[in-house]
Amino acid sequence: MIEQLLTEAKNACRTFQMVDTDTKIQALHAIAQKLIDQQDRILQANQKDIAQAKENGISAAMMDRLLLSPQRIQEMSEGVRMVAHLSDPIGQVIREMDRPNGLRIKQIRIPIGTVGVVYEARPNVTVDIAAICIKTNNVCILKGGKEAYYSNMALAQVMQEAIADILPVSPIYMIDAIDHEVVTELITDREHVDVIIPRGGKGLIQHVVQNAKVPVIETGAGLCHLYVDKEADIDMALQIAQNAKLQRPSVCNAIETILVHTDVAKEFLTRLAPMFAKVQVFGDARSLQYIPGEMATKENYATEYDDYKINIKVVDSMNEAIEHIYTYSTKHSECIVTKDDKRAQYFMDALDSACVYQNASTRFTDGGQFGFGAEVGISTQKLHARGPIGLSEMCSTKYEIYGNGQIRE
Amino acid sequence: MIEQLLTEAKNACRTFQMVDTDTKIQALHAIAQKLIDQQDRILQANQKDIAQAKENGISAAMMDRLLLSPQRIQEMSEGVRMVAHLSDPIGQVIREMDRPNGLRIKQIRIPIGTVGVVYEARPNVTVDIAAICIKTNNVCILKGGKEAYYSNMALAQVMQEAIADILPVSPIYMIDAIDHEVVTELITDREHVDVIIPRGGKGLIQHVVQNAKVPVIETGAGLCHLYVDKEADIDMALQIAQNAKLQRPSVCNAIETILVHTDVAKEFLTRLAPMFAKVQVFGDARSLQYIPGEMATKENYATEYDDYKINIKVVDSMNEAIEHIYTYSTKHSECIVTKDDKRAQYFMDALDSACVYQNASTRFTDGGQFGFGAEVGISTQKLHARGPIGLSEMCSTKYEIYGNGQIRE
Repeated sequence: MIEQLLTEAKNACRTFQMVDTDTKIQALHAIAQKLIDQQDRILQANQKDIAQAKENGISAAMMDRLLLSPQRIQEMSEGVRMVAHLSDPIGQVIREMDRPNGLRIKQIRIPIGTVGVVYEARPNVTVDIAAICIKTNNVCILKGGKEAYYSNMALAQVMQEAIADILPVSPIYMIDAIDHEVVTELITDREHVDVIIPRGGKGLIQHVVQNAKVPVIETGAGLCHLYVDKEADIDMALQIAQNAKLQRPSVCNAIETILVHTDVAKEFLTRLAPMFAKVQVFGDARSLQYIPGEMATKENYATEYDDYKINIKVVDSMNEAIEHIYTYSTKHSECIVTKDDKRAQYFMDALDSACVYQNASTRFTDGGQFGFGAEVGISTQKLHARGPIGLSEMCSTKYEIYGNGQIRE
Repeated sequence: MIEQLLTEAKNACRTFQMVDTDTKIQALHAIAQKLIDQQDRILQANQKDIAQAKENGISAAMMDRLLLSPQRIQEMSEGVRMVAHLSDPIGQVIREMDRPNGLRIKQIRIPIGTVGVVYEARPNVTVDIAAICIKTNNVCILKGGKEAYYSNMALAQVMQEAIADILPVSPIYMIDAIDHEVVTELITDREHVDVIIPRGGKGLIQHVVQNAKVPVIETGAGLCHLYVDKEADIDMALQIAQNAKLQRPSVCNAIETILVHTDVAKEFLTRLAPMFAKVQVFGDARSLQYIPGEMATKENYATEYDDYKINIKVVDSMNEAIEHIYTYSTKHSECIVTKDDKRAQYFMDALDSACVYQNASTRFTDGGQFGFGAEVGISTQKLHARGPIGLSEMCSTKYEIYGNGQIRE
């Protein structure tokens, strides 16, 4: 059904990979401008989606993700300009090697090629991904959620019009279909699609991971832990707990479980209780002595709530905390609060999560906070990218080898 | 069927990731020594495989891959000692960032975790992979071919005995089964297996790529091209053609197609003809004027022979050569022979193959030749690793973030 579109996208790679830095910047600024100029058209399209959503009775949270406003369009536009200003990763030399036989080998960053993105209700993803792909000379193939159909089509068209006279070929392919079969086609076409990135809820991500034949960069799952060590600064631990859980509970880098060393459990939990008054607590018997809540089950410890809910457990040692994290973590982000740097380093070495913190909130696991400028999501897999997926992570590499007639003995 | 083994392997990661550089070196030297000490036992096991192979009437080529000898065991042992001497990639700091809020972020190399390897007849793969995995603190789960069953079991046992008193946990798991269902289990168990690397023929690799749920590093396919430019040094082009096709035709970095610019076609091909006397030529009409052979079909240009066969085509321009390579290449290795560096750079920029050469044989696409010391294979995918898979490519990364109470605004 979409084979022709996928073929065109793959063919576009050859031309688009050769587009130079200045032209890419010019294209990005043109998009930023056009989004503002065509604001009314985008908002009208968005209104169609909103009307449909109201008819279908979608949740307030989903409605909020879907809704566009002049301010949100302004933010998208500024986001695109920010990507324009980031330094160009393409062509960067990663390493250079001179071999004894005179061969000079350079490893350089190149585009991945075609990047398929399957996502849900937020229309800003359309613009974010397109901007990042343009900056990295990748061709994007976008499949948004049906809830945002009109908004996504309008945004894609506005962007395509903006760059039509600047780029030799369009790097933005929007799949104009709302059925699920096109997703299957997209995620299994190894000939035309180089990588698939799912962005959205667990259902979407698991569907893609389980059914893709194209290599996937898995994103999103975040069952993150905070461990309050016996050597913790308790004031600091309380501030971090509050920030990591409550500043924005719905996101993947928020914590779901607090492990607290028995030596400091009473002080920490007694003081945490009023701060977490509006949070539903699932605790073990020891922690429930100090903070009101209900008994936690194994299932609680294995659940990513993304909500005003928290698991708490008192542990007798750092090793018990590490053991717990190994059992339940999705390997996104974990934090230890301790004044003892040796204990911190042991904890950080022992864990293999993408991000391990000493004395800072897990909420910093974010491309912007890491200084990457723009991000596609948080990778929770071991291959290719881990943690925030910035511009470098949206690149592949190749080796250029310069000789003067070398042959192999 | 093998769930217990996969669970044990995954659990072993936690302990094995903490093993330090010196202990890993000691373990590798112990393996190298034990392989020599237990040579007779290994050769006896190999004889069982050979006897079975004779009964089943396998090909001479397969028999050669299967056969072990004191010399081959000596080579395996030396290979392990060489890996021992390579510098340790684990813990290497890839980048460090200081953020304006005082956070210090370090990206460091860590093990991948469990590495499943599915391979065919060559028993030396058992030792190569185990050594590389020990060096990179990865736990390997090996599934060899049924032809080499007794040899692989003996090699794995000898290695396990060698390290039993040195390592706190065994990082070598050999699947003791010859049926195909265990492969399915291995390549779909996302909970216990972090990455799958297939090593072998196209059938095996395609089976794994198409059926795996675990992330795969694809290896091996090599339809490589040599382009002889109008500005080529013809003597050099002839030497490279000979080396890249004939030095070892059965391997993935040998060339399958020569594209020659019309301006130099007559001289190059006339002189190539006697050098390629024993090679079966498939050419276009123009090339067959100068070198004997039969007409090439599209299928010829799309075939990786790994044999004494070559495709030849005369092109009118470098762009036609690039176009041809884009149509047929598996994106492994391509070479341009030209004295004109600007033309070379254009060619190398335009292609997105893993390795692009100016004036050197494609046979150099190899971990040893690149100076990596050891390699697991040649990656032909865009994600994670491209080209020779050395120790760095067998690592994942994590971020360690050091703070003093930072919370997110």
